[in-house]
Amino acid sequence: MNIGHEHAVLGLEHELRTIVGADGLVTDPSAIEMRSRSCLPFKATPTCMVYPSTVEQVRAVLAAAQRADVPVWPVSTGKNFGYGERTAAYEAGITMVLERMNRILHVDEELGYAVIEPGVTYKQLNDHLKSSGSRLWADTAGSTKFASVLGNALDKGRGLTPMADHFGALCGMDVVLPDGTLVETGGGPEGNNQVRHTYKWGVGPYMDGLFVQSNLGIVVRAGIWLMPAPEVFDFAAFEYKASPDRLGAFIDDLRELVMCRALRSFPHLANDFAMMCILAQYPHEMLGGRRHLSDQSAATWRKTHGVAQWTFGCGLYGSREEVRYQRRMLRKVLGRYGMIQFIGAAIRDDWYGRLVRKAAPIANRMLGKSPEFTNVMIPAINLYRGIPTDEFVRQAYFKSHTQKPATDIDPARDRCGMVWIGPVVPFTSTHVLKALSLTKRIFDRHEFDFFVEVIVESARSVIVLVGVFYQREDPADAARAKAWYDEALAAYTEHGYPPYRATTMSTPHALDANPRVRDLLASIKRAVDPQNLLAPGRYGTPMR
Amino acid sequence: MNIGHEHAVLGLEHELRTIVGADGLVTDPSAIEMRSRSCLPFKATPTCMVYPSTVEQVRAVLAAAQRADVPVWPVSTGKNFGYGERTAAYEAGITMVLERMNRILHVDEELGYAVIEPGVTYKQLNDHLKSSGSRLWADTAGSTKFASVLGNALDKGRGLTPMADHFGALCGMDVVLPDGTLVETGGGPEGNNQVRHTYKWGVGPYMDGLFVQSNLGIVVRAGIWLMPAPEVFDFAAFEYKASPDRLGAFIDDLRELVMCRALRSFPHLANDFAMMCILAQYPHEMLGGRRHLSDQSAATWRKTHGVAQWTFGCGLYGSREEVRYQRRMLRKVLGRYGMIQFIGAAIRDDWYGRLVRKAAPIANRMLGKSPEFTNVMIPAINLYRGIPTDEFVRQAYFKSHTQKPATDIDPARDRCGMVWIGPVVPFTSTHVLKALSLTKRIFDRHEFDFFVEVIVESARSVIVLVGVFYQREDPADAARAKAWYDEALAAYTEHGYPPYRATTMSTPHALDANPRVRDLLASIKRAVDPQNLLAPGRYGTPMR
Repeated sequence: MNIGHEHAVLGLEHELRTIVGADGLVTDPSAIEMRSRSCLPFKATPTCMVYPSTVEQVRAVLAAAQRADVPVWPVSTGKNFGYGERTAAYEAGITMVLERMNRILHVDEELGYAVIEPGVTYKQLNDHLKSSGSRLWADTAGSTKFASVLGNALDKGRGLTPMADHFGALCGMDVVLPDGTLVETGGGPEGNNQVRHTYKWGVGPYMDGLFVQSNLGIVVRAGIWLMPAPEVFDFAAFEYKASPDRLGAFIDDLRELVMCRALRSFPHLANDFAMMCILAQYPHEMLGGRRHLSDQSAATWRKTHGVAQWTFGCGLYGSREEVRYQRRMLRKVLGRYGMIQFIGAAIRDDWYGRLVRKAAPIANRMLGKSPEFTNVMIPAINLYRGIPTDEFVRQAYFKSHTQKPATDIDPARDRCGMVWIGPVVPFTSTHVLKALSLTKRIFDRHEFDFFVEVIVESARSVIVLVGVFYQREDPADAARAKAWYDEALAAYTEHGYPPYRATTMSTPHALDANPRVRDLLASIKRAVDPQNLLAPGRYGTPMR
Repeated sequence: MNIGHEHAVLGLEHELRTIVGADGLVTDPSAIEMRSRSCLPFKATPTCMVYPSTVEQVRAVLAAAQRADVPVWPVSTGKNFGYGERTAAYEAGITMVLERMNRILHVDEELGYAVIEPGVTYKQLNDHLKSSGSRLWADTAGSTKFASVLGNALDKGRGLTPMADHFGALCGMDVVLPDGTLVETGGGPEGNNQVRHTYKWGVGPYMDGLFVQSNLGIVVRAGIWLMPAPEVFDFAAFEYKASPDRLGAFIDDLRELVMCRALRSFPHLANDFAMMCILAQYPHEMLGGRRHLSDQSAATWRKTHGVAQWTFGCGLYGSREEVRYQRRMLRKVLGRYGMIQFIGAAIRDDWYGRLVRKAAPIANRMLGKSPEFTNVMIPAINLYRGIPTDEFVRQAYFKSHTQKPATDIDPARDRCGMVWIGPVVPFTSTHVLKALSLTKRIFDRHEFDFFVEVIVESARSVIVLVGVFYQREDPADAARAKAWYDEALAAYTEHGYPPYRATTMSTPHALDANPRVRDLLASIKRAVDPQNLLAPGRYGTPMR
C-alpha cells in the first residue's frame, strides 16, 4: 500500500466511523486479525471491518468506499467455517459484516414464510418461532446455530428437512446495488407487491438468481419459505451393513426413494471417518509415524466405537398415515442394506419419549456403540426438525485440539484448520462410485484421512462433500491441505463435477472451466458495478 | 420505412435466404400476414419471418441482423394464443420462429429429465415418451398440444401435474447471446458438466433465470425435469355447491391441502362461464340487446348444462397407500363444500375403465349435466397425466364462430379474438376474494362476461387467470377488449397483484411499476445487447 493510498484509507475510516458509529468500525490490527481468522489455508486481512445496522448505513458505506475507491467484501455473519468466513479473496479493503442487521420483520403464519435481515441466525429464527407459538419450522444448516440464515442461502448452503434447498426457499429480496440503489426484486409494483414473498419467479427475468453466489449487490432483506410442522414427525437412523460391492445398488435405491417422495428429507450419508469426527478425538497415537491412519488402524478405531461404514439419519414428515407409509418404504428398501431404527419418539415430551431416551444408552451398548452415540442422538434428530445445534460443528476441533470445547464454538477464532469441497454429482451409482473412488485416491495421495458425506441434493444430484482437518499454524500442513484442495478441485472439474460452493481461496477461478459464462457474468458485473467495488473476484468475476 | 432502410432489408433478406434456405424464409406479405396473426387487439407485422433449423443458423441470422441493424423477435412455436403468438411488440423487423429446431436430444430414464430444442411440442415429447416405453411423464399446458415445451416454460407458463411449474422444471440451457456467443449455463466445466441438467443452481449466480421472460438471449436447448409415472393415478372432479359466502373458507382449506401436500397437482378452479366456454357455444340469442349476459341469463344458461358455480379437477399420484390417503383427505376437506367424484379409472384400459366410461353419460344425465361433460372427461383426466389435448383451446372459437372446429385448431389464424391476464395473488381468502370482486367489477364495467380460473400456483400463490373473447375484426369490439385489458392491468398493479405473464401489447411496460428493477435490467440489457437487437421492448426493456 502506498502512502497516498494509506492517507485515503485514514480519511475513509473517519467517514465510516461517522456512518456506523465508533462501535461499528474495527480498525485495530489485532482485533481485525482476530475477527478475520479463517479455517482455510489462506489468509487475507482487511484494512478495516464495518458493522452497519441499517440499510441506510450500508448505502452510506458503499458511497464512501466508492469515493475512496476501496473495495467492500460483504458477509452476513461470516460463520461459513471452512469456506472463507470473514476473509476476502484479496488483501486490504473493507470487510462489511451484516450481523447487526438482525431483525425478523415478519412471519406469515398462513402463507408460511418469514422476512428477515442477513444478521438473523438459525438460533434466532428458531427461537422466535418457538417462543411465538408458530406452527412453522425453519430449516437449519448442519453447521453452527449462529450462522446467518440468509448468508447460508446466498451461498447455496443446504439443510436437512424438506426445505433443505436454502436458496430455493428464498423468495423476494431487497438488494443494495453497488451504486447504492435499493432494488426490490420480483418486478411487481415497488412498495406494494403483495406476492413478492409468495411467488418466486416474478415479472420478467428472475432477478433473485443474480444475487446468489454473487457480488452484484448486497441482500439486506429477503423472504424465506418455512414449512408448517407436520402432524407427525419421526426419525430414522440407518447404518449400512451390506458388503461394499452392493453400495451402488444402494445408491440407486436411495435415489428412487427420493424420486417417488417416500423420502422427504435430504440426508447426509456419512462415511465412518466423518462419523468418528463427531464421536471421538483424533487417535494421533494410532498413526505410527504416518500422516494419516492406515486402512487397518481406521477400521480398528471405528469398530471400537461401533461405527458402520456408512451412516445416515433422515426425517419422516406428514400425517400419521403418511409417516406410517414412509416408515414402511424406508424399512423395505433400506432394510436390504443394513439396520434401520425409528427413534423419533426420543424427542417427545411424554412418558414414551422419556422411555426411549432411557433405553437408548442400553441399546447402544448392546449394539457395541460408544456412549457418544447417545449424546448426539437428540441434537441429530432435532436437526431434522430444523432445530439448530453446535454439536456437530465441534468436529472442527477433533484433530488440532486435544478436546472439543463444550460451548462458545468458533473454529476460525480457535485456529482449527479445515477446508471443504463439495462436487455435485449425478445421483446414479456409476457417478457416485466414480466420484468416491476418485476422491479416495486424492486423499491417499496427500495422506489425509478420507472424510466424506454424500448429501442428497435432490432426486437428481448429490453433493459429495469432502474435507480435511489440518494444523492451521503449521505451514507445511497448511500447504498440504492447500495442495489437496487444488488437486481435488482440478480432478472434479476434469470429471465434470463442479463444486457446489467455492472457498475464498478458489472463488476468483470459480468459472475458469466455463469461460463463456465467466465473460457473460463479467459484462454484467461491469454494467452493474463499473468500479468493481463489491467483492471483486467473488465467483469468477474479475479481481481489481 | 425509408428507401435506404428498405434497400438494406432487401440485402438482408438475400443474406437470410442464404443462411436458412428458400423454404426457411418468408417474405411474401400475405404469408407473413397469415403467420403473424394474433388473437390480441394489437397487430404488428414483421418484415420477414425466418425459420432456422440449427444453432449455427440462429447465430448466422443474428450476425446478419446485427450488420443490417434490424431487430430480431424470437418465438419458439408462437402458439401462446391470447398472449402474443408470433407478433413482436413493434412493427417490422425479423421474426424468428424456432419450430424447425425440434429435436429431442436425450431422455434420461434414471434421473428423470429430457434435453430438447425449442421447437419440440407437448405432443411430440409425450408421443416420444409413450412410444419409447419410458417410465417418465412430461407435464403439459392447458393450451394446444402443438405449443412449445420450452417456449411455454420460458414464458413461465403453467401445467397441472406435480410438475406444473414449467420454468421451475427447466435445468441447464444452451443460449445464443445477441453477439452470437453460445453459452452453456450452470457454470460447470463447459462441454463436460455432468450435472448441468440435474443440479439447478449451478456455480455462481443462477444464470438460467436471466433467460426467462427475457430478451437477453435465445434458448436453443434446455433440460427439463420429468416425473416418473406414479404407481397409482386417480382423478378427482370437484363441484362447489356451498353458498357463496363460504368461498373464502374453501380457498383457505384448499391452500392447506396444497401446503401439507395432500393435494399434489395444481388445479384450475374454473367459474361457471369458464366451464361453459368449454361445454357450449356462446348464447348470442340470450343477450337481449346487451353486450354480455345478465347475471340471470348466465345462471339460467349454466343450469341448463348442469354447471356448478365453481369446478375443478385434480390428479392424485403415488403408491396405492398414498393415493388412498389423498382421496380420503380430498373427500374430507372438499366434501364440506360440494361434490367430489373420483373418476380416474375412466382412462384405464381394463373392464373397469370401460365400465366407468359407459356409466359416465348415464351418471351425468342423472346429475342434470349436458352430454358435453362426458366428451371432455377423458381429455381432462389425461391432462393430469401430462397428455396434451386440443380439446380445451377450442374454447377460443366459442363466441366469434358459430361452431368449434374439430381439428386443425388455430385461433390466431382463424381470427378468434381473445386476450388473457393472470394476476398473481397471495393464496388467502382475503386476497383471492378481493381480486375476484375487483375483477368482476372490471368485467361488468366493460360489459364482458366474467371468465375466471383460479390457478393454484403453489401453496403460497394463485394466479387469477381472466380473459375476454371478442370480435377480432370489429374495431369497436377490439377497442373494448383493449380497454378492458388496460383497466385490469392498472387495477391489478394498483392492488399489488402483478400479472404472471405479459402480452406483446403490454410487454414494453411490464416493469413500469418497479422502475429500479427496470433500470437494473436495462443496464444488463445494454451490456449483453448494446445494439438492442434482440426483441426490444420485451418485459420492460427499452424499445429501439
